[in-house]
Amino acid sequence: AHGKVYLVGAGPGDPDLLTLKAARLISEAKVIVYDNLVGDGVLALVNRSARMIYVGKEAGNHALPQDQINALLVQLAQTGVDVVRLKGGDPFMFGRGGEEMEELVRSGVPCDVVPGITAACGISACTGMPLTHREHARSVIFTTGHLKDGTVNLDWPALARPQQTVVIYMGLGALDIICRELIAHGLPGDTPAAVVHAGTTNRQVTLTDRVDRLAASVRRAEIKSPALIMVGSVVSLHELLSQAPQRDELALAG
Amino acid sequence: AHGKVYLVGAGPGDPDLLTLKAARLISEAKVIVYDNLVGDGVLALVNRSARMIYVGKEAGNHALPQDQINALLVQLAQTGVDVVRLKGGDPFMFGRGGEEMEELVRSGVPCDVVPGITAACGISACTGMPLTHREHARSVIFTTGHLKDGTVNLDWPALARPQQTVVIYMGLGALDIICRELIAHGLPGDTPAAVVHAGTTNRQVTLTDRVDRLAASVRRAEIKSPALIMVGSVVSLHELLSQAPQRDELALAG
Repeated sequence: AHGKVYLVGAGPGDPDLLTLKAARLISEAKVIVYDNLVGDGVLALVNRSARMIYVGKEAGNHALPQDQINALLVQLAQTGVDVVRLKGGDPFMFGRGGEEMEELVRSGVPCDVVPGITAACGISACTGMPLTHREHARSVIFTTGHLKDGTVNLDWPALARPQQTVVIYMGLGALDIICRELIAHGLPGDTPAAVVHAGTTNRQVTLTDRVDRLAASVRRAEIKSPALIMVGSVVSLHELLSQAPQRDELALAG
Repeated sequence: AHGKVYLVGAGPGDPDLLTLKAARLISEAKVIVYDNLVGDGVLALVNRSARMIYVGKEAGNHALPQDQINALLVQLAQTGVDVVRLKGGDPFMFGRGGEEMEELVRSGVPCDVVPGITAACGISACTGMPLTHREHARSVIFTTGHLKDGTVNLDWPALARPQQTVVIYMGLGALDIICRELIAHGLPGDTPAAVVHAGTTNRQVTLTDRVDRLAASVRRAEIKSPALIMVGSVVSLHELLSQAPQRDELALAG
């Protein structure tokens, strides 16, 4: 009989943000297929006897092309073994999980999807930048900003709307173009914006600035990928909300 | 000393989709403040000795107005007890968590946000409708469709874009208007669309139809809230992906 393939969201980085279901599957799996966007803390939960198959460096720069990843998952399942296909964030949000699942279903392989905390939600929580807020944004749009042939082709009129938060995954390489085009399409240059590197991990770096100065500030600060871009009035809440009084985390009081 | 308030995402309904951090906080909490969008399965994890404070019926129809919820959280923390403020989905995505956290920080109360699987990600995974997909949608927009004074005021031009998935939370009461306005603003009437009731729970109902027929179909099927609306070409993948071969879930094979 075929093994089953679980497309599992590894969340934004912090292993404490795995779902109960994902944590169980990861710790019990005998075969794990993973790529670079899966955090080290998550990989540390894997059973030491598990076979680990690495299939990628980063988005757009896979060690294995996507069609070969799809074929690999089918082949592994056909040997009768269950497979945990681990993806950073959520498998169905910029994770190409849909393509993998299509191939699995067409090949008759049992499969299931376990959602994960997408980077935007994880980073929103730990930086104090709500994705929506009555006074700032009534909608939020997620897109990707891959640089391709030196440019990035996004639906700029849809992104440069008022009362909306814009979240751009994998857009750091195109940050100059992104900020310039948003402004060219009507977004005010003084709109608050942020770049967050390695969100939710202990290497997290948050930089905020006006959208018309963001690219220069990020260059000066030498912020690298992986990074998430957030643009919109909600970013202005970061100053207050990141100042929440802290306390030792040993136990709940009460 | 002040207690600490944890704004905790309870996820889309299935308790197995809680994060590790959320599950720990919920099971250890002595005081929980919650509303109706938190699933029964999640509430079943609460310690039996915990004090449970119910503050709402559903979005837009709170047992306590938002400013009184904010004040209640501050008052509880000032008694020195830790509080888990449990919200359906993610606290910073249509959860008004930002407003609660502003009040807490301004009052000097230690607080922290624990992200949750937002309904769209949970439902996407368990219905086989990826939120993004190379051949269907390169971005996804989330908004809410509350009916107010008999109408719903959304940014229709931003929603009626090509190659985009639209997810509308709490929009069932305005479904007629939503579908009509999307089409009036240029979305083709044959765009695939879905309404999912009680997503990720064992009461889940999924209905798909063209956007120009969706409202009538939902009326005939008598689908009630809570429900999520998804509009876009990705919905067409539901037919294939929801047919994934299944298998008993007793253990991982291999």
